[in-house]
Parts: sequence; structure tokens; C-alpha cells
Amino acid sequence: MTTVELSRDSLHASVTDPVASSMNFLNEVANRYPDAISLAAGRPYEGFYRTADITRYLDIYTRHLEDSGHGEEQVRRSLMQYGPSNGQLQPLVSRLLRTDEDIDVPDQAIAITAGCQEAMAIVLRGLFADPADVLLVSEPCYVGVTGAARLIGVPVVGVPEAAGGLDPADVTRVARAVRASGRNPRVLYLVPDFANPSGACLDVHQRRELLRVAAEEDLLVLEDNAYGLFGADDRPRPRLKSLDTDQRVIYLGSFAKSCFPGARVGFLIADQTVVGADGTRRLLAEELATVKSMLSLNTSPIAQGVIGGLLIESDCSLRRANTSKIEFYRRNLRALKDALERHLGTWSDARWNAPAGGFFMVVDIPMTADEKLLEISASEYGVLWTPMSFFYLGDGGRNSIRLSCSALSAEEIDEGVRRLAELVRDHRASLL
Amino acid sequence: MTTVELSRDSLHASVTDPVASSMNFLNEVANRYPDAISLAAGRPYEGFYRTADITRYLDIYTRHLEDSGHGEEQVRRSLMQYGPSNGQLQPLVSRLLRTDEDIDVPDQAIAITAGCQEAMAIVLRGLFADPADVLLVSEPCYVGVTGAARLIGVPVVGVPEAAGGLDPADVTRVARAVRASGRNPRVLYLVPDFANPSGACLDVHQRRELLRVAAEEDLLVLEDNAYGLFGADDRPRPRLKSLDTDQRVIYLGSFAKSCFPGARVGFLIADQTVVGADGTRRLLAEELATVKSMLSLNTSPIAQGVIGGLLIESDCSLRRANTSKIEFYRRNLRALKDALERHLGTWSDARWNAPAGGFFMVVDIPMTADEKLLEISASEYGVLWTPMSFFYLGDGGRNSIRLSCSALSAEEIDEGVRRLAELVRDHRASLL
Repeated sequence: MTTVELSRDSLHASVTDPVASSMNFLNEVANRYPDAISLAAGRPYEGFYRTADITRYLDIYTRHLEDSGHGEEQVRRSLMQYGPSNGQLQPLVSRLLRTDEDIDVPDQAIAITAGCQEAMAIVLRGLFADPADVLLVSEPCYVGVTGAARLIGVPVVGVPEAAGGLDPADVTRVARAVRASGRNPRVLYLVPDFANPSGACLDVHQRRELLRVAAEEDLLVLEDNAYGLFGADDRPRPRLKSLDTDQRVIYLGSFAKSCFPGARVGFLIADQTVVGADGTRRLLAEELATVKSMLSLNTSPIAQGVIGGLLIESDCSLRRANTSKIEFYRRNLRALKDALERHLGTWSDARWNAPAGGFFMVVDIPMTADEKLLEISASEYGVLWTPMSFFYLGDGGRNSIRLSCSALSAEEIDEGVRRLAELVRDHRASLL
Repeated sequence: MTTVELSRDSLHASVTDPVASSMNFLNEVANRYPDAISLAAGRPYEGFYRTADITRYLDIYTRHLEDSGHGEEQVRRSLMQYGPSNGQLQPLVSRLLRTDEDIDVPDQAIAITAGCQEAMAIVLRGLFADPADVLLVSEPCYVGVTGAARLIGVPVVGVPEAAGGLDPADVTRVARAVRASGRNPRVLYLVPDFANPSGACLDVHQRRELLRVAAEEDLLVLEDNAYGLFGADDRPRPRLKSLDTDQRVIYLGSFAKSCFPGARVGFLIADQTVVGADGTRRLLAEELATVKSMLSLNTSPIAQGVIGGLLIESDCSLRRANTSKIEFYRRNLRALKDALERHLGTWSDARWNAPAGGFFMVVDIPMTADEKLLEISASEYGVLWTPMSFFYLGDGGRNSIRLSCSALSAEEIDEGVRRLAELVRDHRASLL
């Protein structure tokens, strides 16, 4: 018998996905230069977390089950046994959605998932059956959704994002071009609030117009709301789902930023009616339970219990529970803008956008922002950032970088941008 | 704008999977007749669980991190932040594998997953790229793996299980037939120890022969060890992976039965070498990290921490930690055999197998064991079981039922079988 060797080429395309390779490269550079300030990492700030909270939230959830009439055996079963595919937090999540987001859906339209990433995989798997079906994405695009699409073999077509966020007219244009090519644009994915990576945010008019266009082009809309709580001001920004009168929007919810990532609990809302050949009518979320069961049976009820306890403690308002975090991220976004102004504003050709919230800004720099420059930036200047090219399906973003301000202190942000400015100054000089 | 309605036919085949429909039917019947004794439910017995254990295990894991030199901030990060795609329990799991299973693999050959179900999905996704690739399964087959295959679009071909478990000669025969049809048998899935649903168990000779055949036919072997601890006696039954000298076996590990299902933590071992076009060599588990990241980023570190604490407390021997459970399931399997003998042995044409361990037995009954009979069994006789036809790709198992003895007391098992015997008696009479 001979030892097995597999050719990497014989593995599925998702294994060798270029975006995954790029992200691996980024992580690998970060590991090699641990002292570099990371304006690349989009993870939330850990200063708000306390390990003791985990068991406290679990205790609150356990008491909640008891108060709801669960005996000891039922509590044990809820937390430690196999559970329903779509989870057990629906009543708390639907209260949260009514309180914070003005979204009113029945419990059975909600499925609790192993993080928002799994919600994406479930929705794409369930909805994409015909090889002609195409996923439209606002581009530049979050790599999680293009990754899930790659995994499932869903073709992706980008709709270029305008400076003020996705232009509904562009959606119409791309949807029609896709259709003219014999394919079927089925779903449009976007992050309407402070997108990752661009920071773009749609105004109310754009949101309504987008829904109108989606109806006109018969698109389902996949709304990813990972950052919605973290606006730079208190201006109300209605979710697409709250404006969705004809069940056209599937909503992806995350607790990673509003609670913490380690629970790996997210959810989806899919209140679309699915009609069977026999006339039976069920909600899409109920149909997708089968997909969930084939992926991971059900989301860990322990992890659900931790998030459940947090929701109960906050009286199902994460907006209220996140007051300090909202203030922190606002301050950091201001710090990032100020630092760019201070260190790059007066002399350089660099330009940046002005997101109305979220974790990210995009800076255009007068040089190629590739992996080679990133390596130099990490090793010689001690600062990390993300090439925007990682977020494009084609070859966009070559002269742009994404800066994240979520995981750092204001002082670190300033120092990181100072180092970035040195990089830009030196390499700009070398271009002249 | 008109309200969205989706045709069920427009959704992916996995949503409308007939096996999922069958399982839904089973659950639905169980819900309608809550007082029926369930010889259908294969879930573990809950009497061993205590809700308070969850936080105790978490505390043990937290202290373990501290003792390993983690400061407060690092502990917080390990449990509450995003983490590595393949998880953090590898050192504990590799100790467990050496202690309990005589399996010695490097940590980087192990990936921690959101239960064993996700491990199946990850492995199948990563390995199946060519449309000609086929998954062979020992048939009757656990529905989790055929479900994952359906989800990913992997074609499945059954290898009929013989009375004494899978016959390696049948693997050769089916692999060659598949190849002769122009397709490529890439992976063989089986549960060598007390299979779900058949209870079959391979002897050591069969195991070695199976590995020889796998090498000869160039198959990877996917070994699912969900029930291995629960032999009816202490006879050693080496895992295929422990006999695997040429890295042909990918091993799926579950904590659902040996710990509890609610953690939703499982793992895979994939120590196969993957060679890149540039000559780089990595282990398959490392390559599959990309797939994991696209499915759910990483397994909840809180859930990992709970299982980690349990592993630490048991000094990484679940065999030792499960002494009471092993005795309980042995007693229940004896109780099931005794009850069948007592209530069906003397007069009926029913025949059953004699599994050497595990949760399941198969009974052949002299009538069609379909959903209609199940409905009658639940409503009129107060007993539930699983039609074996659910576990066949084609139309096998029409006169057989699976009985599970894992979730009941010995008294309930006896009463359940007594009711089953009444059903058989009445409906056998009606056939005459």
C-alpha cells in the first residue's frame, strides 16, 4: 500500500478560492509581524467583553426557561439535547426585531444559524437550483457571501457601487444584461448600512427605489445587516426589510458585533411564501430548515442560550444594550477620519470616502495597493491594511485600501495612519 | 408591487429531499402522539445530563487556558472573539484519540466542526470537484451523509451491506461497476461500529480487508465513529483509522453520544497530504479550513470550551468518562433483545439481527413497514419506530423497521415492544 497523496487541483474550487488565499496571506502577514498596527482587522473591539458574562448570560437564559414553565428536565433537554433545526430563540429575536428594527415577522419566518455566514450558505443553497440562476452582489463585496457562493457553485455578477452607495438604476442595468445573456438574476446581495468593505450607506430614497427595482426585475433581495447599529449619528435608517411590503427581502442578522463573535449565532428572516405542487403553503424559513439540518443539524443550544440571556438582559433591545459600543465605534471612526486628515490631508494625492458609520473607510492611494506593498508596509512601516482588490470579482480596487477602525484604540488608529502616511510618502516619492 | 410567492419546485433539490420529508413525517407523527413510546428516536438518554455541568465544564476550560499561560485578555479572546477556522481543541482531541482510539495524528490534521454533520459537509465539499466523482455508501445508510451529499450535489451509489456488515468484496464489485460506467468512485462512507441504522459491526479481518480493497480501488474511506464506545462487550474493535498506515481514512468524530448533542461540536481527521501545483505540501484538514470558513467561519469557541472542559475533567478518556453510559446502553440493548424474544419470539414470523453494540436493531416484519403502518402504530398501538426504507437509496427495506433503545428506560423498551408485537399480531392476521 502506498501513502495517499492528493493533488490540490483535484479538490473543489472553494478550497483553492483566490479570495481565501488572499485572506490567508493577510493573516499570515499579520502573524509574521505581530507588532504591526492592524488597520486590516475588522473584528470587534474586545475591551467590552468579560469572560464571566458567558455563564451569567447562560444563567439568565436558564432562569428564563424556568420562568416560562420549563421543569428541570425540559431545561436540560433545551440546552443539551438535539433541538429543532431552526433553533429556539425565535420569540426573543422577533421581539428584538420589533423593538430595534421596526421589523414584524412571525416566529416561523426566523431561523437561528451558526453565525451569519451559515445563514448565507443556507439561503444560497436553498434558493439556487437552476444553473442559469445568478447572484448579483453590490461590488466591492463582502468576501463571506462570494465565498459561500463559490462553495455552492452559484455564479456571481457584480453591480458596481456608486460613490453614494448602490444605484438602483445600476441594478436594473445589470439585471437586464444578465437576462439578455440567457441567465436569470435571482437574488441581489447587499449591505445597505455601512457596507464591508466600502462603508457605503443607502439613503431612504435609494432604499425604496431599490425595492421598486427589485420588484420590477423580480429579484429577491438579500439584506445583510451586520453593522446597522453603528451609525455615526442617530439618524434613522430603516432596514430594507422594514420597508418590504411584499416579502421580497431576506434578512441576514448577526450578533457578532452587537453581542460578540464567539457565540457564532446569527439568524435569517425568510417570510416568503413557498407554494408546493399540492398547494401547501409554508414560509421559506421553514423550507430552509432541511438545508440547515444537512449542514449542522441545529445551532448549538448552549450558544443560543448565551445570546438568549444577553437578549433577555437587554430587554430585547441591542440598540440600548450597545450604547457604549456605539459611542466607541463612532469615536474610532472620527479618529480614523481625523488621522487621515492630519497625516495625509495636506500634502498627498490620497483620497478617502466619508462613511456615515460602521467599521471601515476606503482610501485611494497613488500607487498599486497589492500584496507586495502590504508586505513592505508590514515589515518596514509596521502597519497592516487590506487591499481593496480582495473585494472585487474582477480586477477593481487596485489603487485602494480598506482601513478598519473597530479593533483599535483611538491612539493606535492615529499611529497606524501616521505609519501609513510614511509608506505613501516614500512610495509616492519613488513613483515620481 | 405584488407579494412574492416562490414555487417549491424552484428551490434546490436538497430542500425537497425525500429523506428529509420522511424524517419530517416521523417527527410530525411523534408530535401528534406524544404519549406513544418512541422506539424511533435515536437520541441519547438525557438522564446523565445536568444543566449545571455546562458552566462547570466552561470553568474548567477557562482555568485550563489560564494554567496554559493565557492572561485574562487571551482567555476572553479565545472564548468570545472570532477564532481559527479549524478550532482550538486539537491538542485535547489528539490526546483523546491516542488514549481511547490508538490513533496518533498531528494536531493540524484535526478540524473542530459544528457537529459531525458539518464535518461530513466539509469533507464532501472539499473532495468532490469532478462531476464524475461518486460517493459509495454502505447501504442501508445514515441519512446525514446522504443529506450532505444531496446538499452538495454529490452522486451516491450504495454498496449493499451483508448480514455480517459490509463485505469488502462487495466494495470491489460496486467500485468496478461504477468505474465501468465511466464514473469515478472517490470515497467510501461507512460506520464500522454499530452502524445507524443496521447495528452492523465489522470484525478486525473485515477492517483490514476493507483497507486493502480501498487501496486497490484507490478509494478514500470516510469512517464515521458515532457509536464506537458503546459495544455490548469489552472486545477491542480497532478503528479503521488506527489500522490506516497509508492515510487513506478520513475519520469523523462526534461528541453527541459520548458527551451530549447540545454542544454541536464534532471533528474530522484528515491527515492526507495535499500537493499543490507549486510543490507545496499541506494536510487535507488544513486545506479544508477554507471550506469551514465559508460554511460557518469557526465552531463556537464557547461550545468548544464546554467540550474542552469535559475532556480535561476526564483526562482525555471518554471511554473512562462514559463507564455509566456504556453500562446503560448495554443494558438497554439487552432489554430490547429480551423484549423482542419475549413478545415476538415464540409465535411471529418476525426476525431481528443481533448487534454487538450501539443504539439500534433491525426487525423484519411480515408486512409492509411504510408510513401508513407507522401512522396506525402511533395512533392505535402507541408505539413509534422507523421504516428501514428511509435508509435506502432505492426501494430496499420495505419489510423492515429500525428500533432504537437509546432514549428509553428498560421498562419503556419492554412496553414499547409489547405494543409493537400487538401491531404485528393484528396486521399479520389481517394479511392471512
